[in-house]
Order: sequence, then structure tokens, then C-alpha cells
Amino acid sequence: MPKNAFYAQSGGVTAVINASACGVIETARQHPDKIGKVYAGRNGIIGALTEDLIDTSQESDADIAALRHTPSGAFGSCRFKLKGLEESKVEYDRLIEVFKAHDIGFFFYNGGGDSQDTSYKVSQLAEKMGYPITCVGVPKTVDNDLPITDNCPGFGSVAKYVAVSIKEASFDVASMAKTSTKVFVMEVMGRHAGWIAAAGALAAEKESDGPHVILFPEIVFNEEKFLAKVKYAVENYGFCSIVVSEGVRNADGKFLAETGLRDAFGHAQLGGVAPVVANLIKEKLGYKYHWAVADYLQRAARHISSKSDVDQAYALGKAAVELAIAGKNAVMPTVVRLSNNPYKWEIGSANLADVANVEKMMPKEYISEDGFGITAACREYLQPLILGEDYPPYQNGLPQYVQLKNVGVPKKLQTTYTLK
Amino acid sequence: MPKNAFYAQSGGVTAVINASACGVIETARQHPDKIGKVYAGRNGIIGALTEDLIDTSQESDADIAALRHTPSGAFGSCRFKLKGLEESKVEYDRLIEVFKAHDIGFFFYNGGGDSQDTSYKVSQLAEKMGYPITCVGVPKTVDNDLPITDNCPGFGSVAKYVAVSIKEASFDVASMAKTSTKVFVMEVMGRHAGWIAAAGALAAEKESDGPHVILFPEIVFNEEKFLAKVKYAVENYGFCSIVVSEGVRNADGKFLAETGLRDAFGHAQLGGVAPVVANLIKEKLGYKYHWAVADYLQRAARHISSKSDVDQAYALGKAAVELAIAGKNAVMPTVVRLSNNPYKWEIGSANLADVANVEKMMPKEYISEDGFGITAACREYLQPLILGEDYPPYQNGLPQYVQLKNVGVPKKLQTTYTLK
Repeated sequence: MPKNAFYAQSGGVTAVINASACGVIETARQHPDKIGKVYAGRNGIIGALTEDLIDTSQESDADIAALRHTPSGAFGSCRFKLKGLEESKVEYDRLIEVFKAHDIGFFFYNGGGDSQDTSYKVSQLAEKMGYPITCVGVPKTVDNDLPITDNCPGFGSVAKYVAVSIKEASFDVASMAKTSTKVFVMEVMGRHAGWIAAAGALAAEKESDGPHVILFPEIVFNEEKFLAKVKYAVENYGFCSIVVSEGVRNADGKFLAETGLRDAFGHAQLGGVAPVVANLIKEKLGYKYHWAVADYLQRAARHISSKSDVDQAYALGKAAVELAIAGKNAVMPTVVRLSNNPYKWEIGSANLADVANVEKMMPKEYISEDGFGITAACREYLQPLILGEDYPPYQNGLPQYVQLKNVGVPKKLQTTYTLK
Repeated sequence: MPKNAFYAQSGGVTAVINASACGVIETARQHPDKIGKVYAGRNGIIGALTEDLIDTSQESDADIAALRHTPSGAFGSCRFKLKGLEESKVEYDRLIEVFKAHDIGFFFYNGGGDSQDTSYKVSQLAEKMGYPITCVGVPKTVDNDLPITDNCPGFGSVAKYVAVSIKEASFDVASMAKTSTKVFVMEVMGRHAGWIAAAGALAAEKESDGPHVILFPEIVFNEEKFLAKVKYAVENYGFCSIVVSEGVRNADGKFLAETGLRDAFGHAQLGGVAPVVANLIKEKLGYKYHWAVADYLQRAARHISSKSDVDQAYALGKAAVELAIAGKNAVMPTVVRLSNNPYKWEIGSANLADVANVEKMMPKEYISEDGFGITAACREYLQPLILGEDYPPYQNGLPQYVQLKNVGVPKKLQTTYTLK
């Protein structure tokens, strides 16, 4: 009897993490001689620790196929990081207890930086704790900050959402600017890196097009230069459209979002750098503004996913299973870029040891000299990632996203486990 | 020689107002014996007052056709309301001066309630000031508050955007809720009427689906009942997803948006009811939240427009020209609903006298008894309006929206005009 597999989703979900799940499960189903059942962790790794496993074999082929076009994490995700083996051996003992009870020999962990660190730790179980397991990471993160891989599944779709949205809003403001709104500010994700904000710049084909200003977390906010840039856009193009990363900080290192809004009690208000920036413009330049905060809408927007992102997410899930079947442990499939135009890529692989705890920042040379835009090199890198559309099926005007049955695997252990 | 036509866009633009412009211009081009050139007002009626006209005959057929899939107002819009004939005869004298100079015999005004009031005033020019002109209004408004017509172009696409977005975000939060975000709040437009917020409810097919709570401007905000509803959703479905209309007010009649956030100087902060609501939940129930403010993104989102909305916007522009050619003055084409399922409709027409200054509110029986949802009747009304997809063409991963040349018509008057 072949060993069963464990698959879990981790951290913030994306528009395409389920496409990776689809790749994992469909590929495993094609190899019943090598892999038994695929058990998913209910709410990620927590499902493993609490022996709360989902039997994906209870789902129809059609429902599994529908994961490819369904955003979010179909089995639930979690924000829970395993500690080091030395710090918390009890967690690893428990994992082994559960894996043993359910005859699990393969471990697929779908997540970002922290999660690949966990994958790496689990991949050491065989060597360090004598439990034989093949562990393969599946990359995912809208932050696009995993090393080695050309990009991270989830990012391309957010990038497309942001570029499309700011393009549309810029068209809107341009029509209104004569007598009404002159400035539009759109806040996007990216607490540490400006990848997502940078993607907004793809919407501008010429200088007069919006967005005219990008505010990156990598660049200290300079009020004077910023206001001059906004004024220039309004005076020369009639309006100014701005993409601001949630992670923008001032010279004191404080998040701009925290410097502005207070609630009725005077407490600093978390979230919302867009209103702070918009308010500043109103106060100093007097322009009428509108602002939007995309928040989860941007990472859940499967309706406008990038086809290259969906294809890669699926391919990486598929490759993870193929690597595991080939006996590779402690690896993560990656995207390798072969050419920009036309965009060509293939699947490679990296050692988890080289992925864990390494953060890929946006290169300095991707930000334009004035700090408010992207360079040609950045555009060349980003452009292929938003290529192609991959629309979900619709019924009654709404995308048909699947909700799985998520039938639990009967518990085999008498023990309970309390999360630390 | 046939008379020329004047066409202008007015008020807040939408994802499909250009589809109506496309209908007007393409139809006029098919009747060169009846209508000369179509001149568009640059920035709406301001273009007429300042003799700033755009010669649409300079645009290629392909570019005019591309208007059908381009959001925003291609000729610029404005927020400028003509006063009454008695109050401000000088404005009407000026319109007649410009119309006469450019041989304009047809007036098409594309807008919402205020604009149809203007259309009505202009339609009286023949009778009251002896200038022969045929005036036809073209309906448009995301607020969906024009009377007689089944719905207003622009609304169906916002409705679809809101329903799709809250569906996607609800899926996202459902996956995160175990260890992280439990509540998601999405703010949508609608200062006076809850049509747009109501559309969010289309995303829920069963009780456990998000959104679980809709906050309407029609219903006085009741903190206690609201918090109980949120708590119920989190405890029973694991998460709570909320759509809140920007126009929600408390028992004192104050906008909730104005009761909460203050800037660093303690001034009340305009906009942003979502953070107020989210903050309240955090404070009273302790749930982790995320919030989004869609703002212009919702009305500009041509990438996810409803096909019935696009079709109707075009058909109404076409019908406006056909009505004008048939010699009808002081009318507005309307959508007449023939059946719900399958959705069938045809074009009718209304007298501008019956449209001007009449606001269609959301019927009380469209809001569920507890005030936090929609009724079956409301769903039956809204459902057809989001039907069908009408994707724009894409290139390099981005929708290809047209920017017209917008060549000005040489001025014929020596006079200048200062806007009042």
C-alpha cells in the first residue's frame, strides 16, 4: 500500500492557492500506485496537530478541478508557525504521532516564507527523529518575497488586479477632474516590500496616464517632494492618481498609516494610509480627493486573475507531487524564467534549506530615481506576470466557486492536543 | 443639410456611460441624412457654455466602437447644474448662442436625476425661447434612482462588482477565520439609497455564505442589534462578512462615517464608514477585522461589467437618437422589464417632465424584517441586472480602453463665457 499524503495551506490565502491544491490532488490521483489518499489539514498545520484531517478522496473530480478557479483556501488556512525542533519537540512528536496513525509519508506545505521554514523543519524529521517522510514545499505568497523562484503564485494575480483597478479608476478621475475629484489614492498591500505597489505602474503606458505616483515602503516618505509631484500631475495632466503601499513609513520609521487617523477616543487607528495621504493633499494643496483601500479584495480577486499566475500555481502543485514521487525531500518547485518577451518559463526546484528564512526584497534598481515610479527593468520583470486572463465560469452573473464537502477523516488517536 | 447634435456626459461617470455614447454616435452615423455631426461637450454641459466642443466625426469607427468597452466619460464629465430658466436666463441665452453658431438641433444629455432635470429645461427652449431643438435624455447613474425605467445604466455593473467582490472576500475570510481575521467589512457607494449595498446580498446563496450583514442608509444604525448579528455569524459560521453603505446614519441622523475617525488635528474625517464599523466590532466583540473601501473602483470596474448593463446602456443611447429622429422632444428612453426569469426587456420611453426631480427610493419591502438583508422580491429584481459577462479586449495583461483624440471644433463666437 502506498503511503498517504498530507497537504496544508498556510498564511494569507490568495486567488490561486487552490490552483496549487488542484495541481497536488489531481497529480496524486494520477499515481495511485505511489500515493494513497491526500489528506488536507483543516486550517493548515493546525489540522495536523489536532488530528483534524480532511479526506480529499471524498471530493469528486469535478469539484477538485473547480479548485483551479476558486480563490481562498478551500481547506482553511492558519497563521501558526511551528517553533524550532529544539524549542518545541512536543509539536514535532505530535506531528509524527498523527502522521504515523494515518500512514502519512508525504508532506506538502503550501505557503510563503514562514511556511517554507516549517516545511524545511518537517523535512528534517526523517533524519532527526527517525520518521520517514518526504517533504516538498509549494510556494505561495502575494508578497512575492520568496527567493530563487522567478515569482510567487498569488502575486501575479494581485499585480493584475492592482494594475487593472488603478487604470480604471484613473480613467474615472480624468473624466471628473474639471469640476470635481482631482486626486485618487488607492492603497494596496505590501508591508515590507513594494512589489504590489510597483505593479500599479504597469497601468501607465505614457507619462500622462495614471498612476502618476507610487509610494513604496522602501522609500522614506518625503512630504515636500510628494506634494510637488502631485501638484505637477494635476497642473499638467489635469488629475493625479496614486498607488500607496500600506507599508510606507516616514523619516522616523513610523508607518504613515499610524500617524494620521484617530478614532473618536483619540486612539491611533490601524490601517488606512490612503485616507492619511488624501487628507494631506487636501490640506496642503486643496484638491478634492477620493480614496480606496483594496485590502482582501485584491488578493481574493480570482475573477481577474492572471493566466500565467494560475498556470504556474497549478504547475507548481503538480511538480511538488512529481518531485515527491521521485523521492526528493526538502525541496520546493520554482518558476524559472527563460525569456521575457515572449514570456517563457519552466519548472525548476530549490532546496528548502536555501529558501527558509531568506526574503527577496525589491531590487533598488527597480525604483525610479525620484522614488515615485518604476524603472524599465522593473516593468520588464513585472509585465509577464499579469499576462493572460483565466476567467472562472459564471452562473446567474456570479463566478461559480466551489465549496468542498471537507469530510473529516475519522480520528484514530485517543489523545487530544492543545495548541501552544 | 441636417442639423448637428450635441452630446454630453454629466455627473459621476460609470463603467458603461461610454457604451451609451457609443450607441448615440454609432446610430447618428447611420443616419447622415437626419443628423449632421455629433459634437460632444468637453466636460459635459460646461463644454456647451464655453463653446468647447469636441468633433466626434474625427474619431475612427473602431475608436467609437471601443467606447462600448471603455469605462469613465470619454469626453469628460462635470458636476454643474443649470439653474432654472427664470433664475439664470443668461445660461440659456448662452446655450442658444452656441447651439445656433454650430447649427445644433439635437441635444442628448447623459446623466442622472439632476441631469434629466437639465435635459427637461433644455427641452423647453423651443417653446419658451423660440430656439428649435429636440432634446432627449439618456439615463445613467450607479445610484439607480431614476423613476420609470426598470433600472439605470451603470448600476448593474456596480452591483455585479460588489456581489463578486464580497463573494471573493468572504471566501478569503472564511479560510482565515480559525486563527486570524474573523470579520470583513466592505464599504460601498450609496449616500441616500441602499441599492448598491443590497446588491452585495446576491453573493450569498445560503445563510452561511457571506455577506451576513448589510447596512443600509434606509435603516437607522442600531449598534446593539448589529453587534448581536455579527456575533451570531462568527459563532455559527466561523466568520462574518459585512457590506456597509457609505450613507448609513445613526439615530441622530449623523453619518456613521463622520462619528468616528478624526485626523491628527482632531478634525472629523470625511469618508470611511468601514473603519468605523470595523473598529466598533473590535472594541465591543474583540474580533480581528479587515476592511476595504471600494470607492471609484466599483463604478469604474468595466472589467467585470454586467452584460445586461452594457447592452442596455448601448440600447438606450441608440434609442435616444431614434427618438430624436422620430421628432420626439423632452423624452428619455427607458428599460421596460418584461420578465424576470428568463430576463427579458425592451426599450420604452418616458416624458422628461415625469423624470425630472423624481427620486426612486428602494422599496421598504426590499429590506428584510431585521433590517440587515434583502427579501426575495429584492433578489428577484436585482438578479437579472448582474447577468452575463462582457469582457473588454486585453493586451499585455491589461484591458484596452480607448482614449479618443477629442479634437476641438473651431470656435465661431468671439464672445467668452464665465461659468457662474
